[in-house]
Amino acid sequence: MSDRILKLIIEYDGTNYVGWQRQAEGVSIQSLIEDALVPFEGGPVTVHAAGRTDAGVHALAQVASVVTSSVHDVATLQRALNAVLPADVRIISIEDAPPGFHARFDAVSKTYEYRIVNGPYASAFQQRYVWHIPGVLDVEAMRAGAATFIGRNDFAAFQATGANVSTTVRTIHALDLFRRDGGGTEPALLVMQITGDGFLRHMVRTIAGTLVDVGLGRWPASHIATILASRDRTRAGRAAPAAGLFLVEVSYAAPDFAL
Amino acid sequence: MSDRILKLIIEYDGTNYVGWQRQAEGVSIQSLIEDALVPFEGGPVTVHAAGRTDAGVHALAQVASVVTSSVHDVATLQRALNAVLPADVRIISIEDAPPGFHARFDAVSKTYEYRIVNGPYASAFQQRYVWHIPGVLDVEAMRAGAATFIGRNDFAAFQATGANVSTTVRTIHALDLFRRDGGGTEPALLVMQITGDGFLRHMVRTIAGTLVDVGLGRWPASHIATILASRDRTRAGRAAPAAGLFLVEVSYAAPDFAL
Repeated sequence: MSDRILKLIIEYDGTNYVGWQRQAEGVSIQSLIEDALVPFEGGPVTVHAAGRTDAGVHALAQVASVVTSSVHDVATLQRALNAVLPADVRIISIEDAPPGFHARFDAVSKTYEYRIVNGPYASAFQQRYVWHIPGVLDVEAMRAGAATFIGRNDFAAFQATGANVSTTVRTIHALDLFRRDGGGTEPALLVMQITGDGFLRHMVRTIAGTLVDVGLGRWPASHIATILASRDRTRAGRAAPAAGLFLVEVSYAAPDFAL
Repeated sequence: MSDRILKLIIEYDGTNYVGWQRQAEGVSIQSLIEDALVPFEGGPVTVHAAGRTDAGVHALAQVASVVTSSVHDVATLQRALNAVLPADVRIISIEDAPPGFHARFDAVSKTYEYRIVNGPYASAFQQRYVWHIPGVLDVEAMRAGAATFIGRNDFAAFQATGANVSTTVRTIHALDLFRRDGGGTEPALLVMQITGDGFLRHMVRTIAGTLVDVGLGRWPASHIATILASRDRTRAGRAAPAAGLFLVEVSYAAPDFAL
């Protein structure tokens, strides 16, 4: 009999946490969920997430997988986890996954978005969930710059310094800027949404920071090609702050074997 | 020359505060704003608000008044206050008010609303701003009960025990229940919005709690008339929690004198 693997979809407000990954200090989303599973497993268990979000980054639909010895049905597990997790971390769904499923290794694309308030003030209710930019943004210039990132590129200039990965080549499928109603009386949002096959550490944040620098007129949109070609992190813009960043969606290939 | 009086409109996320009113312990909205005004006044100043919201209650448009010795223009004052206030307290506007204006004594009506999520889970992002009720609510029964409150009534049964006021008669102009889109991927809200000439301490919370008890089938809607007539606090439902409650609007009569 093969191991039972669960696929969890998780929503969280990252404000009060050190990020997805378990750390020596502070509370992580991973540690909350692993600890909540202990009574069902009878011992420690490791949960793998598709995207290892940074401290303060939010998720609408993080995907995680876990090899479980639990025999409980998924509805019972979901109810029990939500009963013990803090209210700013919610398990949206649990399902039985195909044999061998791994939330990170099997992900074929991920979508993140930045929510920007571009005006004199962000509202008192938005401040945990937006990047507030008081200066006027030239959104058309940002769109022109965004087009440069589309496709297969070497993103060495857009990863955190000191990172150690085998390749810095990634493919960006889409990078869109659009307005979204803020809901109720809230100011409208400028949303920057990016989909790719994978992201280097701080890559989404550095792309967003660089595009905002273009929007503020620090650089022309055409300068982004120069930064990409340099492969030099010191050439790109600042990393955008965590508060406005959401992991929106993780996509998987249709399984090519029966469950 | 008469005193200069400022009318401030203030938005706040009440989660981290002890309420509007300055307390011996904890941070209040009033203390934040009074302290922020000290550099402009050259000394302590008292700010009066229309509604003395409880700990954890939010405001979309609290109105406050202050007699000021400042000679700064209102735009400068607004910018300076927002620069020093925490991001979850925002001054939406400041204007010069007519002579003698007092935010509380001159208010002719106030509107509060409860935001309710009625379903298995509130989202991770809503939890600070909603009252989560998992049980199924009969909204039609709640509407029938709500109608009983409309008009001039003695609300002694709906005020906090131990309160000491000269009269417990208040007039409710409107009490509506309606659905509102939650924004983005958030669950829809059930909004309970109430407008009246004034509210006793915990009156909005106790009316909301009692209507939810009707919605959950604890009482028939017709029982609300009995509770009102009893003038006995122990007959009404529980006070609803603070997190879902917003001060939405304060109305004033058109001034009958020139500014």
